[in-house]
Amino acid sequence: MALLRSYVSGEWHTAAEEGVPLHDAVTGEEAARISSAGIDFAAALEYGRRVGGPALRELTFHQRAALLKALASHLREHREELYALSARTGATLGDSKFDIDGGFGTLFAYSSKGKREMPNDTVYVDGNVEQLSRGGTFVAQHICTPLRGVAIQINAFNFPVWGPLEKLAPAFLAGVPSLIKPASQTAYLTSRLVELIIESGILPEGTVQFVAGSVGDLLDHVTAQDLVSFTGSASTARKLRAHPAIVRNAVRFTAEADSLNCSILGPDAKPGTTEFDLYVKQLVTEMTVKAGQKCTAIRRAFVPAELLDDVAAAASARLAKTTVGNPTSDGVRMGALASLEQREEVRRSLKALRDAGSVVFGDPERVEVVDADAERGAFLSPVLLKADPDRSEPHEVEAFGPVSTLLPYTSVEQVVELAARGGGSLAGSIVSADKEFVREVVLGAAPYHGRLLVLDADDAKESTGHGSPMPQLVHGGPGRAGGGEEMGGVRGVLHHMQRTAVQGSPAALTAVTGRWVAGAPREEGLHPFRKSLAELKIGDSVVTAPRQVTLADIDHFAEFTGDTFYAHTNPEAAAANPLFGGIVAHGYLILSFAAGLFVSPEPGPVLANYGLENLRFLTPVKAGDELTVTLTAKQITPRIDQDYGEVRWDADVTNSAGESVAKYDLLTLVSKEQS
Amino acid sequence: MALLRSYVSGEWHTAAEEGVPLHDAVTGEEAARISSAGIDFAAALEYGRRVGGPALRELTFHQRAALLKALASHLREHREELYALSARTGATLGDSKFDIDGGFGTLFAYSSKGKREMPNDTVYVDGNVEQLSRGGTFVAQHICTPLRGVAIQINAFNFPVWGPLEKLAPAFLAGVPSLIKPASQTAYLTSRLVELIIESGILPEGTVQFVAGSVGDLLDHVTAQDLVSFTGSASTARKLRAHPAIVRNAVRFTAEADSLNCSILGPDAKPGTTEFDLYVKQLVTEMTVKAGQKCTAIRRAFVPAELLDDVAAAASARLAKTTVGNPTSDGVRMGALASLEQREEVRRSLKALRDAGSVVFGDPERVEVVDADAERGAFLSPVLLKADPDRSEPHEVEAFGPVSTLLPYTSVEQVVELAARGGGSLAGSIVSADKEFVREVVLGAAPYHGRLLVLDADDAKESTGHGSPMPQLVHGGPGRAGGGEEMGGVRGVLHHMQRTAVQGSPAALTAVTGRWVAGAPREEGLHPFRKSLAELKIGDSVVTAPRQVTLADIDHFAEFTGDTFYAHTNPEAAAANPLFGGIVAHGYLILSFAAGLFVSPEPGPVLANYGLENLRFLTPVKAGDELTVTLTAKQITPRIDQDYGEVRWDADVTNSAGESVAKYDLLTLVSKEQS
Repeated sequence: MALLRSYVSGEWHTAAEEGVPLHDAVTGEEAARISSAGIDFAAALEYGRRVGGPALRELTFHQRAALLKALASHLREHREELYALSARTGATLGDSKFDIDGGFGTLFAYSSKGKREMPNDTVYVDGNVEQLSRGGTFVAQHICTPLRGVAIQINAFNFPVWGPLEKLAPAFLAGVPSLIKPASQTAYLTSRLVELIIESGILPEGTVQFVAGSVGDLLDHVTAQDLVSFTGSASTARKLRAHPAIVRNAVRFTAEADSLNCSILGPDAKPGTTEFDLYVKQLVTEMTVKAGQKCTAIRRAFVPAELLDDVAAAASARLAKTTVGNPTSDGVRMGALASLEQREEVRRSLKALRDAGSVVFGDPERVEVVDADAERGAFLSPVLLKADPDRSEPHEVEAFGPVSTLLPYTSVEQVVELAARGGGSLAGSIVSADKEFVREVVLGAAPYHGRLLVLDADDAKESTGHGSPMPQLVHGGPGRAGGGEEMGGVRGVLHHMQRTAVQGSPAALTAVTGRWVAGAPREEGLHPFRKSLAELKIGDSVVTAPRQVTLADIDHFAEFTGDTFYAHTNPEAAAANPLFGGIVAHGYLILSFAAGLFVSPEPGPVLANYGLENLRFLTPVKAGDELTVTLTAKQITPRIDQDYGEVRWDADVTNSAGESVAKYDLLTLVSKEQS
Repeated sequence: MALLRSYVSGEWHTAAEEGVPLHDAVTGEEAARISSAGIDFAAALEYGRRVGGPALRELTFHQRAALLKALASHLREHREELYALSARTGATLGDSKFDIDGGFGTLFAYSSKGKREMPNDTVYVDGNVEQLSRGGTFVAQHICTPLRGVAIQINAFNFPVWGPLEKLAPAFLAGVPSLIKPASQTAYLTSRLVELIIESGILPEGTVQFVAGSVGDLLDHVTAQDLVSFTGSASTARKLRAHPAIVRNAVRFTAEADSLNCSILGPDAKPGTTEFDLYVKQLVTEMTVKAGQKCTAIRRAFVPAELLDDVAAAASARLAKTTVGNPTSDGVRMGALASLEQREEVRRSLKALRDAGSVVFGDPERVEVVDADAERGAFLSPVLLKADPDRSEPHEVEAFGPVSTLLPYTSVEQVVELAARGGGSLAGSIVSADKEFVREVVLGAAPYHGRLLVLDADDAKESTGHGSPMPQLVHGGPGRAGGGEEMGGVRGVLHHMQRTAVQGSPAALTAVTGRWVAGAPREEGLHPFRKSLAELKIGDSVVTAPRQVTLADIDHFAEFTGDTFYAHTNPEAAAANPLFGGIVAHGYLILSFAAGLFVSPEPGPVLANYGLENLRFLTPVKAGDELTVTLTAKQITPRIDQDYGEVRWDADVTNSAGESVAKYDLLTLVSKEQS
């Protein structure tokens, strides 16, 4: 491989210099060279803002979601090629799948979240309409709109595929173009990934840029509309956070830094229990997957003092079976670290950790390897230590490799306090079947963690494990872990958007949000159930004729449905009810009569009523009351892959005094066209 | 008044030095002295963490909400005393109410939000349960728990009461103790407010501390569990954001900086229209309330070029009627700035603004005042300018006083672009009745704003105006405005909490969250509708006997309710429906029969079914199908001020094949005790 190319301002850029060599982690041979010399970074940012942003903002969330899905499907066809490159970073096939298929899975998951949980629109409506006045003429609605800048994504070396994709997916869905900067060590894999993305032509031009090499003066040009997200070491995170342009412009800055994650074994999980075995197995997995180079890996393994020797013995036995070597060779369970420099770094950290305790398994200086040269390749034995939990080193020194430390504890209070000494972590796990213990530890440790896994016999088969961030869940932790939050489903999308409170009349908010806001004008004419999606407009409405509810109706409904609750059947008892003070109609009678009033019986565009939301019974209905329904089209969501879509209706059932007796959102499926 | 006292580590602290004099803004006399000398700031933070935090965390959200309400009621009784002190800051009675009653209103609003939108519990559950596995044994739920540190609240001089209270309320509700640091100029008013709070004994000890004077080395001691929120100038915000301890520990830092807020007049709002008058009136109000010392005040008044002279004339006429002087004197409409230094600062900014345009109204160096000495008191005339919108000064130079600049524009695109040149604002307003214009401007300006007001004839009577942050709405803006977000109802509470994704089995999540998660064990025994809140437990459940739905039932239901939709009545048409393929039972029939199955008719603890949430019809029900309901207690919320509470039930209606035909949350009111 030669000099890696960058993709900026709509063109592939090759530096006019030799570049810095990158080495194959297994053989030590040169794998590629890297340099970003000659890139005009200010121009690249401006290109993203001027070309990529507008192109994305023209698409609805559903359209963006569909492109993410198409991209994921396309990339999946090229995974073998990526696996091969990934092996050169020291990764076994399992490690590669974790990174590469994990990245595609994140694209698919974001596509699905975008389609299911976001509107088929360009404006995201956040939360409920806020009533700001008694008369209802002044209301507010929070909306989220995409920032008008570029999401600068600075990635770590350990996940060259998943890392860029988990940052790209929410940014893209939000409507913000990305500029991807990989860590140099493994940039040849990210580079190929980006080539596949660009060459596919699936994403609009300008929405993905790529800088192979140093970011130069890029950050000097960030504005308040750009974002910077960083994954990597805590020290670099600090440097970036204090960058003058980031501080000056209050730029949104997110960091995920590797942290001293803990795994806690419950006192109930004695040898012979399922949980004991789960704990040991997970500990070894976390030490050896990606050769322990995961920001989320277990660094601090807390075990009840009386179980420490048992855990040490069981983990050592498992570790002894971990074959280290060339990741492409048969039977190899753990490959190399990403570089020789990385191995030196881990060895330095190991020295500090050994000062606080002793080695239980593994020799930091020696390892037997299969099909490789143990010194030219960045190989390292898994190393399990044990240490005094009162020492500071185990809570502060991170060896970013196949290294973990066993720490004994003697009480729930103590282990919660010890977990907190990590100063903020991305992930933690509690392995126990004792629910009381689990509750205490989870609630005590939660303020210090972005994610906590409770592992037990019930979920073990389906659990994705301690170390796996999930697109549905937030990824990030306080303090040492960087203080950031990524992913978490739609939350991660909203991090790329500006939330704005819009105040105004219902009519003004309806115009802005494209959703009908109660109090805005309604349009009565043809029954709106006779209109296809193409014809229906927000605010289209029907006000039904009234229907009286009689005592006979209530009696009959009770008898027919079996709902003979005393408030509907027993005058004396009903009179004593503090809320009703007499016989009232069933809530379901009101709903049923309402449907009878607003239904349009003949076949037409409305296919089904598939649900209700936010139903509240507001005023008791007594015999003799007359009910009227006002039904208004509130939100229209055509599905991009079906010939129908969803229509949300505002339903307001009122009595003869004009009081609302029930309010709800009615959910229907409606054809796009008249058949 | 003498030296202001601080309240730290559970004691009133008086500095052992003279302190710095603070001056009455109206008379120039000494109003108080201030010094924080001798305070052990590290100890104060530790006291908050050790005493205030645990005391708060023992309370549920509803209990905290009730204390905020009690506090607001108590403080309201002392408002006259606070008004009198407020007048010394230069505030008219109207200004004082804006600050003082506005502050109490924020406490009331947060109390109400806490009670209505948060659980009566100590854990906040965020978002839905996330399904992470096919088999349903591995799920996740985000929870929010209070940070274990102290919320350091650094306030601005212009709102000595509202400022501290709008920061205290969400922190308190979250369960995080506050340390209040007022701006010196008006600290004597905040000092009295805090004395009233402490002396009332309403809030638990340690939850409010107060530092009169410099914060010394306070910030050197912040950890990742503390928060720092700042309101004030953009330059101080930058300094704090880059503070080494804040950067090192990734401390949550929020800034609200005064910004160059815009107000945009629509081209439709010609002289003679209601909107024209509203625009001019609001502009003058924003210039003169608090003598223009509001972070949200209008600095840039964009008007269609052809209307500039009309607006200038109308605004000048109104400004001419603004009597300036001693704020306690009759007829005075605008008081003094907060200090002579402040006036100098405004005059300096005015010089820069005049370079880019000219003065339309007011003399920056001279003003006629009532009942006061125009030089000893910090009086300044309102000054309206007009300027070339292409110049940079109007978009960058803020005169933090009764100053605004008229700027002409000629197209929608231009005004959207000009609005963005403020670099990020707290608030903006659009005054227009043209909905298309409103939509374009709001969506174009939204990424640069925290709040946008649409003002028109419809909402004018009830509108709270351009300059008023509302507790329900986010307050803060990107970039120049500080990049922060405060308030916004529950959002502002969550800013003080750590969001943690908890993964585990349904049983484990149920134990952690105190809410029943689908798939967790259920307990069948006595019908749960026979249990009072005192007896009922999460997971208590009933599985009903089956009931068959017959074609006669469907026919009869159609006839009785009038819901003769073809899918229930017309076999041929129903067969053609793409979703049903034949006659199906009404959704409301399913709900009604379900109620008939699970109801417990005799009087008992269940008082009413007050609503439904998240109803989805999942599988069509055909004649002959048998329905069974499984109802499980999911969440129990006793009301602290009633003898009943809310119970949310998980309802799952299944057919004989065991498929879910409908799922929903049933909402009931249940007595605390058996009667």
